[in-house]
Amino acid sequence: MEEYLLLDAGSGGRASQRLIGSMFLRHFSNEALNRLDDAALLNVSGPLAMSTDSYTVSPLFFAGGSIGTLAVHGTINDISMLGAEPRWLSCAFILEEGLPLAELEKVVADMGEAARKAGVKIVTGDTKVVPKGACDKIFINTSGIGEVYASPVPSGHSAKTGDVVLASGTMGDHGLAIMAARSGVSFLSGARSDSAPLNGLAREIYEATGCVHVLRDPTRGGLATTLNEIAEQSGVEIEIEQAAIPINEEVKSGCSFLGLDPLYLANEGKLICIVPENLAQKALFAMRANEYGQEAAIIGQVREGRPGRVALRTEIGGKRLLGMLEGAQLPRIC
Amino acid sequence: MEEYLLLDAGSGGRASQRLIGSMFLRHFSNEALNRLDDAALLNVSGPLAMSTDSYTVSPLFFAGGSIGTLAVHGTINDISMLGAEPRWLSCAFILEEGLPLAELEKVVADMGEAARKAGVKIVTGDTKVVPKGACDKIFINTSGIGEVYASPVPSGHSAKTGDVVLASGTMGDHGLAIMAARSGVSFLSGARSDSAPLNGLAREIYEATGCVHVLRDPTRGGLATTLNEIAEQSGVEIEIEQAAIPINEEVKSGCSFLGLDPLYLANEGKLICIVPENLAQKALFAMRANEYGQEAAIIGQVREGRPGRVALRTEIGGKRLLGMLEGAQLPRIC
Repeated sequence: MEEYLLLDAGSGGRASQRLIGSMFLRHFSNEALNRLDDAALLNVSGPLAMSTDSYTVSPLFFAGGSIGTLAVHGTINDISMLGAEPRWLSCAFILEEGLPLAELEKVVADMGEAARKAGVKIVTGDTKVVPKGACDKIFINTSGIGEVYASPVPSGHSAKTGDVVLASGTMGDHGLAIMAARSGVSFLSGARSDSAPLNGLAREIYEATGCVHVLRDPTRGGLATTLNEIAEQSGVEIEIEQAAIPINEEVKSGCSFLGLDPLYLANEGKLICIVPENLAQKALFAMRANEYGQEAAIIGQVREGRPGRVALRTEIGGKRLLGMLEGAQLPRIC
Repeated sequence: MEEYLLLDAGSGGRASQRLIGSMFLRHFSNEALNRLDDAALLNVSGPLAMSTDSYTVSPLFFAGGSIGTLAVHGTINDISMLGAEPRWLSCAFILEEGLPLAELEKVVADMGEAARKAGVKIVTGDTKVVPKGACDKIFINTSGIGEVYASPVPSGHSAKTGDVVLASGTMGDHGLAIMAARSGVSFLSGARSDSAPLNGLAREIYEATGCVHVLRDPTRGGLATTLNEIAEQSGVEIEIEQAAIPINEEVKSGCSFLGLDPLYLANEGKLICIVPENLAQKALFAMRANEYGQEAAIIGQVREGRPGRVALRTEIGGKRLLGMLEGAQLPRIC
């Protein structure tokens, strides 16, 4: 096999077949995929959740993950936020001619491992190779299907006055890890992406409470932007306590040095959940019992007030509005 | 609204919301998409087909279609080839900073119209914006879900000795149209992409015959490559008649000038179907009755012989092997 990716590998002909056989089938193998028909056949019943995300993160590898782990976790997490168990993923690569095949293989191996750990199968795929310069190394799209178990499903439209807002863990880790990987600044070297699958965590919260009004993963735009979306969609005000929001020390100091607000940094393994007040403790216990929710905390409450507004009660007792992200804090974060 | 796409539009913040509201929701509007949750909720039962494809075609617009029509038709067609009715698509854009918004809007409008005409809904999406130079204008991924109606489903593994091979129309139109759009050579200006949705055609063949062994759309690598895949997967030999293969005059003369073989050029609105011999006429009539199958023809037969081999009986009575595409005839064809 060659050392670098050739344009031929995207032709649909013999070279494409070799790449599929030598790499994708080896890491993703399952009955539906191995048939190599134009589409995968899936047995399913009942309501489904469908989601899609493209991943363009730069660099491809960083502390705590890679474009491969993000591509699997990100789509799994989006599906999980609808109260659905992710089951099947598609995987479509856009690859740059000349890419070292060893890099591609590392990414593919990361995807295979992440999918196995989360209990999902990559059942269908596509590979395009574009001439050198027409894309930057590797872009990946994953789309996914999950079987809905929640009824009614959680939705950004369902927050109610009095509900309690919980975060599953520390905020801003992924955003700072990418910044650290790009800058090479040594004191940021403790920053580590939180890339993780949240299907188990989401399901355990639902099983513990039987009623989850909102589930969202605060990715691009961070916690602040996600809360603003919920406040707008539900027509409520959300008030959160700055002191209650879990943030790693490395992220706090890195952000203060770089002039960034961790509440606007992307997360890739955290969720926000909003439940009726009487279920908040149950939700909290369920979250802390899961490996990806050990630092879960109650961070605020849904209030009467101005619909669409998010207020932050600061550590020194003041209160300020927390707007949606304006502008782009960091391109190609995921 | 701005005239050119800014990086902010991929941030997940306010600028992303504006782009989604002003463009995507306007062209794609439907109940599932409009909720703007992390995933779309779909009601479905029974076996499903899932497929994915990324589109990187250059140029974005060409005679007979655009990257937008391809992105909708291509995924619809892959699902249809499994004997399934495509119902829902996801749509993920990777966009280059500085892209004229008018170009994006034309593509989005093409997608909306193609989806409506084919009876599918775009229910969930994603937008990434990468810095200028990190991709070439617009890449689109669509993934799709269809409800399987065929039993058993057609598959590349199911061709049997004695079966008849049919093509739904002329071969090579899309490939030559892209080449014409790139070269600007005036005598190629009659070349026109066949970009079209094949869900209705596939279903009508199945309803007319009740038994379809293989359905495939000969996209990248063309008819020759698709037949080789089928011959290998089914362990059969396929023999086709050169004189029986429908090819437009423009494509014939363009190919002979450019030194290309139309049997290796991509199609985006044609299918190959393989049925038991006693059902071949029924299949042919059903195809000719559909707007996308008017030039359908019986082009060959599945033979005992060497498994995996495709033989072409030439117009002068000879016979030659038709191999799979080696190398890349044309990058970024779809």
